[in-house]
Amino acid sequence: MSRPSTRPAHLVARARTSACVLVLVLASALPAQGTLVLQSDFGTRDGAVASMKGVATGVDAHLRIHDLTHQIEPFDIWEGAYRLRQVTPFWPAGTVVVSVVDPGVGTERKSVVARTRRGLLIVTPDNGTLTLIADDVVEVREIDVTRQRLPGSERSHTFHGRDIFAYLGARLAAGQVRFDQVGPSRGTEFVKLPVPVARREGDAVHGMIAMIDRPYGNLWTNIPAAMLDAVGWKVGDTLEVAIAHDGRPQVVALKAPMVESFGFAAKGEPVAYLNSLLELAVALNMDSFSERHGVGAGPAWTIRVRRVGAARRP
Amino acid sequence: MSRPSTRPAHLVARARTSACVLVLVLASALPAQGTLVLQSDFGTRDGAVASMKGVATGVDAHLRIHDLTHQIEPFDIWEGAYRLRQVTPFWPAGTVVVSVVDPGVGTERKSVVARTRRGLLIVTPDNGTLTLIADDVVEVREIDVTRQRLPGSERSHTFHGRDIFAYLGARLAAGQVRFDQVGPSRGTEFVKLPVPVARREGDAVHGMIAMIDRPYGNLWTNIPAAMLDAVGWKVGDTLEVAIAHDGRPQVVALKAPMVESFGFAAKGEPVAYLNSLLELAVALNMDSFSERHGVGAGPAWTIRVRRVGAARRP
Amino acid sequence: MSRPSTRPAHLVARARTSACVLVLVLASALPAQGTLVLQSDFGTRDGAVASMKGVATGVDAHLRIHDLTHQIEPFDIWEGAYRLRQVTPFWPAGTVVVSVVDPGVGTERKSVVARTRRGLLIVTPDNGTLTLIADDVVEVREIDVTRQRLPGSERSHTFHGRDIFAYLGARLAAGQVRFDQVGPSRGTEFVKLPVPVARREGDAVHGMIAMIDRPYGNLWTNIPAAMLDAVGWKVGDTLEVAIAHDGRPQVVALKAPMVESFGFAAKGEPVAYLNSLLELAVALNMDSFSERHGVGAGPAWTIRVRRVGAARRP
Repeated sequence: MSRPSTRPAHLVARARTSACVLVLVLASALPAQGTLVLQSDFGTRDGAVASMKGVATGVDAHLRIHDLTHQIEPFDIWEGAYRLRQVTPFWPAGTVVVSVVDPGVGTERKSVVARTRRGLLIVTPDNGTLTLIADDVVEVREIDVTRQRLPGSERSHTFHGRDIFAYLGARLAAGQVRFDQVGPSRGTEFVKLPVPVARREGDAVHGMIAMIDRPYGNLWTNIPAAMLDAVGWKVGDTLEVAIAHDGRPQVVALKAPMVESFGFAAKGEPVAYLNSLLELAVALNMDSFSERHGVGAGPAWTIRVRRVGAARRP
Repeated sequence: MSRPSTRPAHLVARARTSACVLVLVLASALPAQGTLVLQSDFGTRDGAVASMKGVATGVDAHLRIHDLTHQIEPFDIWEGAYRLRQVTPFWPAGTVVVSVVDPGVGTERKSVVARTRRGLLIVTPDNGTLTLIADDVVEVREIDVTRQRLPGSERSHTFHGRDIFAYLGARLAAGQVRFDQVGPSRGTEFVKLPVPVARREGDAVHGMIAMIDRPYGNLWTNIPAAMLDAVGWKVGDTLEVAIAHDGRPQVVALKAPMVESFGFAAKGEPVAYLNSLLELAVALNMDSFSERHGVGAGPAWTIRVRRVGAARRP
Repeated sequence: MSRPSTRPAHLVARARTSACVLVLVLASALPAQGTLVLQSDFGTRDGAVASMKGVATGVDAHLRIHDLTHQIEPFDIWEGAYRLRQVTPFWPAGTVVVSVVDPGVGTERKSVVARTRRGLLIVTPDNGTLTLIADDVVEVREIDVTRQRLPGSERSHTFHGRDIFAYLGARLAAGQVRFDQVGPSRGTEFVKLPVPVARREGDAVHGMIAMIDRPYGNLWTNIPAAMLDAVGWKVGDTLEVAIAHDGRPQVVALKAPMVESFGFAAKGEPVAYLNSLLELAVALNMDSFSERHGVGAGPAWTIRVRRVGAARRP
């Protein structure tokens, strides 16, 4: 049985605008020139990532090189886009992020550098990776790949991660090339994937399972805290969750208390909560919702949430 | 067939006290201000760890950030505790370690910073992670989480790894906050898990399988070299090993030579040896003992070892 | 159906010597004193790698420590050798690489430091890891393990990765010990694994599957671009591929267009291409050749390639 939180509901109300605050405060952090962050679907079992880091170290041995993740599901541009959105708000201005999920490597797809509002640079194939931070992008430049390329790599067509993206990213991070020298500006034109938008409908909110929170198996939706605030749902309420895949019901009328964190439910019991991106999430305390209920993520996975019980209001 | 080592037994006797020496010598290493080491059960598939590193870089872009591991089995506090014990003796004074295995995140469980004898700081939820380095902890302070927290993160309750631990750890490593400013001292009071103690009983030693040495599948016990020295067992002796799970026999009367290293037995043959923490371990040379014999680790897994054959003494 | 590339064949011809150029240009990169790169088969689930990094940080907290990979298949010296060859050309002079795939740890096998033509140092057990960069090694010195060893570690015999290799590698990278102080020179004598050589035979080229390109499942052969150039095969040609394991056919007469990159074939269709090491590779676009056709890597896996269709020549 689930144990509803006894936390006062006004705590949630009080923090109504803190999603915005969170991002704004980070914007005031110190510049981080010399910081290079790498993301890919290369995995870490082979030498691909280490080759990228070698190239970057060859550009400037004093760069601080970090990994976002290299375990994006192969070719999964959506996941790459999601990780950029999840992580970039927490890196300081001046950080250069190289993101390479690139099924079209070596074909006619373009490569770009995007500059964000807060002064990060994202170096990436232009295939949709920027979708979920699109509002944050102030300018995109197309990489002139004949000039911005590791010398001697002209015959290599399947590893732009090393030959173009890591090399250029390192030179940007090291201050050896400026954003405006990368190639021609495209304003804010770049490839965007279709993005389902969460919406309110009567007394229910509808959204998608945007990501599985691994390794735990929690479900992260695209329903923002602001929408829950607008409908007036609070910690202590009881929500009813329905999940469908391609329109076919997968989870029916599952009840979960709205809590601040997992531990306010008994082990194995369902909870609804605001995740660390301040969006609605659903989990089993210390168990995998994704595995127990066979739920995945992506535009085909939709979720509908209603309130079926209210906490006592003060 | 196993090939017993031909190494002279006095080599073992001579080094009787080197477990202590090993730790003492390391204590004289240079301070490492600016070094931050992260451990968690977050895995590296998503953006959690990278968000922590972003926050730390925002605090001070010049921190040197390293990973202990992020592949602790989800919620396994014992494993987190074991890894701290395995690794912290090898990091220099001044290192700040952030350890987040935190099933109770966002509940009433407390958060602490522990200072060790050698001057490391461990930032962690107070849930047992410090158990296996308890003797090394000279003072614990409870984190005042209302003050020591990433500005703007007040509404986020499920990711203290990012919002509190990485942020505070980075500030400690950067010298922006001192240990005595973290919050009130608790002396040496903190949560400790029950720890089985190895013991001698007649001609046998009894202990537990404390950890599986992955990826190899070797069994690491909690039986220290000093206990083997005390009973007088030496390289070249033959040991008989019995392993039980919850009291039920799992491995019966398996014979293994005491060797210096794996390669002194034939491929696939069992060996007993001192592992890199100078505790008794059992392995199959170039094979997985854990998988072959279905053996796991934890307090329920007990081991009994007797000597059934002695090497020729000089 | 596969869609052959429409790229002009002269692009391939023009770049005939760029494999050499690629390496030479990298040789002119800046020195990277203070850079330490670690490779092992330890995985990252436990504390082994973090212990190595702790020891290195204790030597000099300002070292920049990077991972090559730690997910070498346990005990697979061939894979370790392959990764060194794949990655070291992309790291600048002065880089110290520690490579520990060491089934014989603690036995009579020797330990060495190799210096390469471009001024990298490789610290490793002498068990074959240097095989695939043998031409690049100008001098090898045997490590005097009684002197070059973490103080206090004398009783530990199963973790030279921490006690000898990381410690010495860090001291070399930090400039605390010079190459000529490591131990006696052995010239260029070191252990080499047998290496199958690709060869031309009539109108076919014969080679081996040298590595599976994970996580994608592409097959990387040991057939160099120069051999394809010599037989005159070009982008747009159609190749016929046969693969055998221990002489037994595994893949028979599979046709694949020679392309610049994956995306020039339809999803799931086979392609032949030059990989990022400028050797012949075979893949399914956005699918796993290795899994679909049950193909592995190593000396037992041989490949024969013929041209069965020619692109229109200008």
